[in-house]
Amino acid sequence: MIKVQVITLFPDMFTGVFGSSMLWKAQKDGHVELSTIDLRQFGLGQRRTVDDTPYGGGDGMLLRPEPLFAAVELAKKNDPDAKVLLMTARGRCWKQATAQAHADSKDSYIVICGRYEGYDERIVSVVDEQISVGDYVLTGGELPAMTVVDSIIRLIPGVLGGETSAVIESFSDGETLEFPQYTRPEEFNGMKVPDVLLSGNHAEIAKWRAANSKKADKK
Amino acid sequence: MIKVQVITLFPDMFTGVFGSSMLWKAQKDGHVELSTIDLRQFGLGQRRTVDDTPYGGGDGMLLRPEPLFAAVELAKKNDPDAKVLLMTARGRCWKQATAQAHADSKDSYIVICGRYEGYDERIVSVVDEQISVGDYVLTGGELPAMTVVDSIIRLIPGVLGGETSAVIESFSDGETLEFPQYTRPEEFNGMKVPDVLLSGNHAEIAKWRAANSKKADKK
Repeated sequence: MIKVQVITLFPDMFTGVFGSSMLWKAQKDGHVELSTIDLRQFGLGQRRTVDDTPYGGGDGMLLRPEPLFAAVELAKKNDPDAKVLLMTARGRCWKQATAQAHADSKDSYIVICGRYEGYDERIVSVVDEQISVGDYVLTGGELPAMTVVDSIIRLIPGVLGGETSAVIESFSDGETLEFPQYTRPEEFNGMKVPDVLLSGNHAEIAKWRAANSKKADKK
Repeated sequence: MIKVQVITLFPDMFTGVFGSSMLWKAQKDGHVELSTIDLRQFGLGQRRTVDDTPYGGGDGMLLRPEPLFAAVELAKKNDPDAKVLLMTARGRCWKQATAQAHADSKDSYIVICGRYEGYDERIVSVVDEQISVGDYVLTGGELPAMTVVDSIIRLIPGVLGGETSAVIESFSDGETLEFPQYTRPEEFNGMKVPDVLLSGNHAEIAKWRAANSKKADKK
């Protein structure tokens, strides 16, 4: 069973996401074990300080190394072979092919959520992979961590079960080939389902779908 | 004040994320009002059905138009000028510049979370913008919705307050220019902060940071 331990200052952010929908069911069915480690418990002194100002100047606060290393050490004790992922805007861009490779590997993971303001670079000495989910800035690594976990776990055989996709998954080859889809009712607010989809002519339907697919032009 | 109403089958997923960290504070400080609309309440019949099989064949289930339209109608009643965003893998790729443009616009938003299996295409007739957060497949539009909301709200003047960034934000021009950062202690586990950062020589520090920045090569 794949284990994922997420190191974060905001474990409450994960409760609803890990407790709903596919991720909830994947845990219930024994495909994955998801947990969080509260970075704050490794904070320094009575105030449980986890951050400090940057050397060399700068406005924000950075996560100090001691609490981060202590959290990773605990997580490694729980699961010595787990790969350590760091969510950071400077990481390698996450793609469907990356998600698939991670699902295939059957590795377990320790996921470090950076905070927006930054982290002490020495943590990368224990990191196996630095990951970015897109070219935008977020407040912390929590949403990227959830994104990476969702995209991996749903690819583990058995997790989606019978709910195979009505959507063609072809990000893996770098292209988007999804097409518009329609369900009942046949007419709604004056808008009708395209006739071809009601025709039962599978060759025509396939042709229509190919013609109406959007190719990836998302760079 | 900017309002965001999220239409979802999984409102519980949002509780922790909207209730923590920057998004919690932005609401408390009156910059934004975040709420969810449970799509299930607009389900059809006693079983509150929201989905059905696709016309033309395919494995998954699609969100039917009636509940989606009813949810958008309610949201528009609450906020007639709100822009409708649809989270979908076929959408335009979200970038930092898009987040900035949305924050500048001061628009309010209605965010529709598609489910992985798909949705009836007729909903796009009431959608202003289709958005994808990256080239990977997720179980639903919930994590993308949170991602888009986080990336917009943190750019609203006053939200981050004094916590200006130690990280250079330069995704806007398409480049990543973040550099490694260090904080106390000066030495940890035998790893030392680079001398130049302790030197107090601002010109040298700037030079070192530029030389150690990662440019965007994430396409």
